Amino acid sequence: MPHLIAVDWGTSSLRGARLDEAGRVLEEKSAPLGILNVPNGDFAGVFASLFSDWMKPAGSVCLISGMAGSRQGWSEAPYVACPAGPDELARRLHWIEPGRIALVPGLSDEQGDVPDVMRGEEVQIFGAMRLTGLGEGLFVLPGTHSKWATVQGGRVIGFRTYMTGEFYGLLSQHSILARTLDADAALDEAAFLRGVTRAGNGEGLLHNAFGVRALGLFGRLSPAQSASYLSGLLIGEELRLQELPMGREVIAIGAAALTARYALALGQRGARVRSFGAEATWAGVRALRR
Amino acid sequence: MPHLIAVDWGTSSLRGARLDEAGRVLEEKSAPLGILNVPNGDFAGVFASLFSDWMKPAGSVCLISGMAGSRQGWSEAPYVACPAGPDELARRLHWIEPGRIALVPGLSDEQGDVPDVMRGEEVQIFGAMRLTGLGEGLFVLPGTHSKWATVQGGRVIGFRTYMTGEFYGLLSQHSILARTLDADAALDEAAFLRGVTRAGNGEGLLHNAFGVRALGLFGRLSPAQSASYLSGLLIGEELRLQELPMGREVIAIGAAALTARYALALGQRGARVRSFGAEATWAGVRALRR
Repeated sequence: MPHLIAVDWGTSSLRGARLDEAGRVLEEKSAPLGILNVPNGDFAGVFASLFSDWMKPAGSVCLISGMAGSRQGWSEAPYVACPAGPDELARRLHWIEPGRIALVPGLSDEQGDVPDVMRGEEVQIFGAMRLTGLGEGLFVLPGTHSKWATVQGGRVIGFRTYMTGEFYGLLSQHSILARTLDADAALDEAAFLRGVTRAGNGEGLLHNAFGVRALGLFGRLSPAQSASYLSGLLIGEELRLQELPMGREVIAIGAAALTARYALALGQRGARVRSFGAEATWAGVRALRR
Repeated sequence: MPHLIAVDWGTSSLRGARLDEAGRVLEEKSAPLGILNVPNGDFAGVFASLFSDWMKPAGSVCLISGMAGSRQGWSEAPYVACPAGPDELARRLHWIEPGRIALVPGLSDEQGDVPDVMRGEEVQIFGAMRLTGLGEGLFVLPGTHSKWATVQGGRVIGFRTYMTGEFYGLLSQHSILARTLDADAALDEAAFLRGVTRAGNGEGLLHNAFGVRALGLFGRLSPAQSASYLSGLLIGEELRLQELPMGREVIAIGAAALTARYALALGQRGARVRSFGAEATWAGVRALRR
């Protein structure tokens, strides 16, 4: 039986799934072989070692999303400009082996004279659209570089990247804040939400981040609380910049620990959140093959 | 002849000046002996080795500003709350040797439920007030942690800290932006001002910083230009948050290379800038001894 193989090949790791005709996941696989960890740049070799069994049935097709399609990846699949949906991307697949293995292009969005880009998240958005039946809405994909995307008429009409996860790592590990912050502490919800609220003052991250230091100096935040407060400041800074009228639904896609934080912050703003994980990727690849 | 000795004892270095009765600088001295580099925490020993000659004349007095008055310094001189001017601080000097050696307290400013703090900059502000004759105005002290202070009636009525210099270091050396950025390149004024303008979109640093990456990917910013553009984004983010009606005068105090960047950015916003360096510190210590 020919199968559809979905692979999300990112910077530091790789995940794949074998889907049946109805799009159900038959088997999953993951490896720490992100594009930065591919020995000798032998993408074809890594691919074969992981997926040749799955690809054996005649007619099997594999679609690969994520950084594997970047300049540093297997082969460059040029960005497709917004607005774009599954149809546009299906037409622009970048075939490694025609009819068998393709890279899914990322999306670009021009904002004034500055572009924005995503690779891999577009497939997750398409998947969440299928899983929810939504042809329009606001989607957030938290992570190292979080994405907020607006969907209308079944297409992504625009998006913004926020370096939230990366800033959290830099500030909690390498800045002066690291001295009075316990990055390994469990989430303190009250401190987290206090940070979300603080970000709403609109005075910006450069200023509000220093407040973590000052609150620590004055004994008003413990090291464990400081980590949660900083996380709240950063996520709150993202939220401050979104249109979130009361009751707005937001679709969150990502690791459960992260989407739970966003749900907490968005809940405080009166938004409703539905969350999805890896299933959004598999459903998105399926959407590209309809 | 008794002298007034002014010392600015910071985190990584220390500068001192011997002043005559009129406040003129007779001699200056500096050393890489910031509070983090004091052997065995022997502040008295370091002080004696550097300044015992200057302190010999009977009646000599030394005032020390900066981090030497912090909890990690020689002795903790508690913050004085805003509004505060030279009179308030002169009354709250923290004497190490009564009548001879004192630490100048820093300032604190409560903003909602979050405090802000400075140590050392307050003396520079008092000095610039003397040098300009201004009893009110807007003062900026660029650096690792930049300060913007508002002066009215000869007192600092409030201030904000921005982690601008520290963010620049983190982003240009440790973030994904470092891969396509030449941190050692000379200032590219056009790229710098483009960053200042971009920050004015109000979409926040988490988003605008990612634009450095995207512009690089699309070949629209060279590594050298990226460093200047990022610097402009950060300083522009500070400026976005200040009240700067056309023609507003801003007093900038700090290293010439930094105040020049702020003058460039502020000039684009229609502000007038007067800049001061170390002389502001010496004049400020003098203001505390009147």
